[in-house]
Amino acid sequence: MKTLVSKIKLRVRFSEVDSMGIAWHGSYVKYLEDGREAFGREYNLGYMDVYKKGFFTPIVKLDLDYKLPLRYEESAIIETKYINSDAAKIIFEYRILSLDNKLLAKAKTIQVFVNLSGKLELSTPDFFVDWKIKNKLI
Amino acid sequence: MKTLVSKIKLRVRFSEVDSMGIAWHGSYVKYLEDGREAFGREYNLGYMDVYKKGFFTPIVKLDLDYKLPLRYEESAIIETKYINSDAAKIIFEYRILSLDNKLLAKAKTIQVFVNLSGKLELSTPDFFVDWKIKNKLI
Amino acid sequence: MKTLVSKIKLRVRFSEVDSMGIAWHGSYVKYLEDGREAFGREYNLGYMDVYKKGFFTPIVKLDLDYKLPLRYEESAIIETKYINSDAAKIIFEYRILSLDNKLLAKAKTIQVFVNLSGKLELSTPDFFVDWKIKNKLI
Amino acid sequence: MKTLVSKIKLRVRFSEVDSMGIAWHGSYVKYLEDGREAFGREYNLGYMDVYKKGFFTPIVKLDLDYKLPLRYEESAIIETKYINSDAAKIIFEYRILSLDNKLLAKAKTIQVFVNLSGKLELSTPDFFVDWKIKNKLI
Repeated sequence: MKTLVSKIKLRVRFSEVDSMGIAWHGSYVKYLEDGREAFGREYNLGYMDVYKKGFFTPIVKLDLDYKLPLRYEESAIIETKYINSDAAKIIFEYRILSLDNKLLAKAKTIQVFVNLSGKLELSTPDFFVDWKIKNKLI
Repeated sequence: MKTLVSKIKLRVRFSEVDSMGIAWHGSYVKYLEDGREAFGREYNLGYMDVYKKGFFTPIVKLDLDYKLPLRYEESAIIETKYINSDAAKIIFEYRILSLDNKLLAKAKTIQVFVNLSGKLELSTPDFFVDWKIKNKLI
Repeated sequence: MKTLVSKIKLRVRFSEVDSMGIAWHGSYVKYLEDGREAFGREYNLGYMDVYKKGFFTPIVKLDLDYKLPLRYEESAIIETKYINSDAAKIIFEYRILSLDNKLLAKAKTIQVFVNLSGKLELSTPDFFVDWKIKNKLI
Repeated sequence: MKTLVSKIKLRVRFSEVDSMGIAWHGSYVKYLEDGREAFGREYNLGYMDVYKKGFFTPIVKLDLDYKLPLRYEESAIIETKYINSDAAKIIFEYRILSLDNKLLAKAKTIQVFVNLSGKLELSTPDFFVDWKIKNKLI
């Protein structure tokens, strides 16, 4: 089975830093979203791709482990890895790495499928089965 | 002519403070929005009130003058004052005041009316003329 | 052993809502911080209380479970509960509840003690042992 | 006199979009900061460059004119232009342009010099006079 991973670089903005001079822990939620959007652009699984198929994919679970601080203007790599699942879910695992490859944070998100009327989909939508086939995941 | 003013209290959150230990200048945009929403609730001119009449009211101009810093956990008063205008606009002036009445910041926003298809309204919508009459502004 | 819980009310701001019309999942990190700061004010364990004792308490773990969406202008209660631990950690569990008492989200954060030079404290700081005694937790 | 301008590209993030599906007006404050930081890196006038010389440069004035909306995932160019002044101030003018060169927003910020003890500097600091000379502005 193929491993689908996307990598992008972040640089800590002034507005993301707290009074300790390090990236505020809530800023990481944006970094993960940046990683997920980069994955979406690379593998055609972006918010708009999914929306056009008739679904929203709200996040139902977010776990974040902070290992080492990120300082203002520091750069890091967000690595976003797709985790395949039989459930009607989109699961990602993330690693935020310093430029010299130290693990700064790791995270996991779980998204579900909700149709445009707001109803939760309990079985994997057809378009997502197709996406999995196309990406040699099933 | 009546003066319509709304006042609410803010307290500076940790996430709003920058590495200088004071409220980041961008945080004030949220404080103004808090003031505007408080005004909307008090005078029935909230986002949803206007939306139900068929309009969005995007901000087209924002001016902010920062006079004195706001520190973490400090409280202040946001005073939101409606400025009447013949144009198809909603204009507010704001003052952010310390609890001992020092002027910390002042601001102004201008909003226009856009219908739900995204078209700019050049004349004042009927519902807003009614709102003005009800509030003894015309 | 006493249970220490703090409750405050939130109202979803326009700036916190995403294009689905519900509170963006990252906004909840601020809601948790609001809960934690309310707890800090109620039980003298705020950021500044701890800072005056010579410590920062960065968050090293954040888990968030989203159950039901929060819409623009909706109000909810953030319940922040202190979880006692023998480790040199501050642990909180949170519940975000609708006004009719439905569980909208639950969360957990773990904070560690770092001295002002940035060194991790492996044993519980004296001031925090005192705080626990004062609050009948040990 | 030389014109100092810096350009960078932005892409609208999901978290920056409001319930109208367009970039929330407060998100632009971050875009301007991105532009200003890019200018700082290009011309050695970043936050840290100035801090090392003993100064903070808080924003005292922010004016923003919104012309056309920015949608989710849309890209744009932030153009940050230094405006020379005899006063002890740093003034920038900004234009946010679509990729086909339409003016989406324009803005202006004014920053002052405050020493590390928080005192406002009324005359231009030596390091900034040197910076102006080096950049052929005086």
